[in-house]
Amino acid sequence: MSAGRDVWGDRSSAGPPRSFFSSRWSPRPAHVHDLGPDAGLPAGFRAAGVACGIKPSGNPDLGLIVCDSDKPVSSARFTTTGTPAAPVLLSQERCALDSLRVVLANSGCANAATGRRGLEDAAKTQGAAAIATGAEPAQVVLGSTGGISQYLPVDNALNGIREAASQLSRDGDRAFQHAIQTTDAFEKRACLRVQLPSGDVMLTAQCKGAGMISPNFATMLCFIQTDAILEPATADLLLGVCVKRSFDRCSVDGQLSTNDTAVLMCSGESGVRVAPESEDELRFGEALDALLRRLAILMVADGEGSRRIGRVVVRGGHQPTVETAARAVANSPLVKTALYGGDPNWGRIVQAVGGALPGTAPLPLDISIEGVQVCSAGAALLTDDEVEAALLSALEREEVEYDITLPGEGAETEVFFSDLSYEYVRINAEYTT
Amino acid sequence: MSAGRDVWGDRSSAGPPRSFFSSRWSPRPAHVHDLGPDAGLPAGFRAAGVACGIKPSGNPDLGLIVCDSDKPVSSARFTTTGTPAAPVLLSQERCALDSLRVVLANSGCANAATGRRGLEDAAKTQGAAAIATGAEPAQVVLGSTGGISQYLPVDNALNGIREAASQLSRDGDRAFQHAIQTTDAFEKRACLRVQLPSGDVMLTAQCKGAGMISPNFATMLCFIQTDAILEPATADLLLGVCVKRSFDRCSVDGQLSTNDTAVLMCSGESGVRVAPESEDELRFGEALDALLRRLAILMVADGEGSRRIGRVVVRGGHQPTVETAARAVANSPLVKTALYGGDPNWGRIVQAVGGALPGTAPLPLDISIEGVQVCSAGAALLTDDEVEAALLSALEREEVEYDITLPGEGAETEVFFSDLSYEYVRINAEYTT
Repeated sequence: MSAGRDVWGDRSSAGPPRSFFSSRWSPRPAHVHDLGPDAGLPAGFRAAGVACGIKPSGNPDLGLIVCDSDKPVSSARFTTTGTPAAPVLLSQERCALDSLRVVLANSGCANAATGRRGLEDAAKTQGAAAIATGAEPAQVVLGSTGGISQYLPVDNALNGIREAASQLSRDGDRAFQHAIQTTDAFEKRACLRVQLPSGDVMLTAQCKGAGMISPNFATMLCFIQTDAILEPATADLLLGVCVKRSFDRCSVDGQLSTNDTAVLMCSGESGVRVAPESEDELRFGEALDALLRRLAILMVADGEGSRRIGRVVVRGGHQPTVETAARAVANSPLVKTALYGGDPNWGRIVQAVGGALPGTAPLPLDISIEGVQVCSAGAALLTDDEVEAALLSALEREEVEYDITLPGEGAETEVFFSDLSYEYVRINAEYTT
Repeated sequence: MSAGRDVWGDRSSAGPPRSFFSSRWSPRPAHVHDLGPDAGLPAGFRAAGVACGIKPSGNPDLGLIVCDSDKPVSSARFTTTGTPAAPVLLSQERCALDSLRVVLANSGCANAATGRRGLEDAAKTQGAAAIATGAEPAQVVLGSTGGISQYLPVDNALNGIREAASQLSRDGDRAFQHAIQTTDAFEKRACLRVQLPSGDVMLTAQCKGAGMISPNFATMLCFIQTDAILEPATADLLLGVCVKRSFDRCSVDGQLSTNDTAVLMCSGESGVRVAPESEDELRFGEALDALLRRLAILMVADGEGSRRIGRVVVRGGHQPTVETAARAVANSPLVKTALYGGDPNWGRIVQAVGGALPGTAPLPLDISIEGVQVCSAGAALLTDDEVEAALLSALEREEVEYDITLPGEGAETEVFFSDLSYEYVRINAEYTT
């Protein structure tokens, strides 16, 4: 919408951002190098993406990733919703999540709220993907995104699995990426080289999610590959920590999906071992952290209709309290519309924090926006005119930072969030099931 | 926006709804009669509203209500926010809330986030209102609504108090109503006659609030008067119960205001006593309940940009769980945009409930919309086409009802909520502090 929008990727060509690490909130670690979008997958991985008719549009809608290693190592994280989709339930109940070999993902249908039939449909596709790739069914993890309450067109999916299996290649990550996208305006994909003390490894990821706000419940799916050698416990530890610092810290509209899934797979083909509690583990963790944080910020930036994104940092003495306050600000439609409008309306932050922490009155909170303190101990420090003069140019940028200090010390959190625009309403009101 | 909109009041003339009890969700009890908007206040009350320059527009912005009884009885409820405005803090700390004689209310400035100076400003106006009306300062309750972080123009307010005190009259309730409105599109005011076994009493109310969503934090203010004789404990009990069933049960955007205030005042001038645990108390309580529920629904209907309103009823076995689920649905921007668009997109309800109740998977919830069951034990009962055919005309109405059943029995709750429209975004994004 503004010229600066391009920093998030050229939407007209739906390409990835020109520079992957372009946000001040997820800088590139010195030992991590962006290889660009055409570098392909790490050794030991092949991928493909096809169109098999799950989407009525005929766009790509089914993808496979296969790890050809003898001993693949993996870890996965899923949505905590009380109403998980069939592919999430099946993956959690029937997969060897520490030794996954295959990812089967589709867009165009979430296979959620589909009951027993949905589980049976998912199991059929899991079995077909296992046969097509020579894996065990328990080694095939599923990821779906699309409309809730719709049944999966299983025959289309089975045809798609066969076709995708015949097209697997080291540079199939782009086709896979396209097959998992729904309303995403641009790719969220990276190919990185990571310099570890024990040698270089590759780290790649394909991610989808226009926030959690798509009309179809866009869902967050993220698949990560590396040729480093990780023990299952190391993979699980690093994925868990990095997901908490990335996908768990972003909000478009506070809506948790039925289908969120993140999977890390390690082929070990580089021969470089990331041993527990080693300098290699530290460096690999830093790279994974930077990668996932950047992908999370890109998802927020791609929230439908999004023009600007915010980061709220809350400090205080009690972790649950700072967490509650940060979520309240990030999910407040009043704060979000102010961000959209470039309005330094910090009274809305006072209101959001106070409303989320009943019974704490009077709460002596401090508020700064882009480093300018506007509120001290709950009271205005500057007139509205002074605030506007100090902040007007800052609020026209793509990224706006809010710092809130509550009483006490030692607790801190952050949440990334998108603004709320006309476009969000248009997309979500005009969609019809 | 649609012809049916008029049921909520003729917005062009900003008049009250033609029939006060026009919602199926708050029917008129047989012993309650709408006297129309020109009936004036109950015996023992006078009111006035003036323009004193707090609002730059020159519109009315300050009002007084005075109870002339020797022994006024009252009760009050306030926002539970952690960041209450100065008038809320002062009223809570310095007022005899069971024997209030005067309401001093202003629009155009919330006097919130104003620290010590805000409290001092509020105290000055409280003292001036006491002098102007012959009451004690502790008998003057304050209510403010408008922009947060702005200081009250005290001199204007003092002039306004003097002028309002000189204009007090039995039919000053309309002028008072106009003085407390901000972005309200129509009056929320009623004059009722209530037939009790012991005799007839009057019950009137003036209420403002375009939801809680105004750019200025519209805030909910409600002032209620009766000429019945109530003991302080009875007044407090009835107000508490009825507020919980009305203003506590509505949501425009889940944003709790810094200034919400509800005050019930009883002059006793009718000579009709509402004794504790009597049939009179039951009937009076029913009337107050119907009045406040209708006012709450009108506030939701007046949510800025609102086209339709919803009521979600959740049943189950655990009260906190049904409460969490109902709030999640009412505050979900996806459900709200679907309501706005007339879209029977019940997958969004599955998602909202599941997201609000993590760790409960798989949650066997049932969902009905306007009596049509669409989801049983978490799975689709009908195809999307069947749902659309069954519900399309129902979803074009002004009021849409959603029923959700969770496991267990004995717990039930309801929340009224507005839709989410372009207009909401426009109003809240284009406003500048």
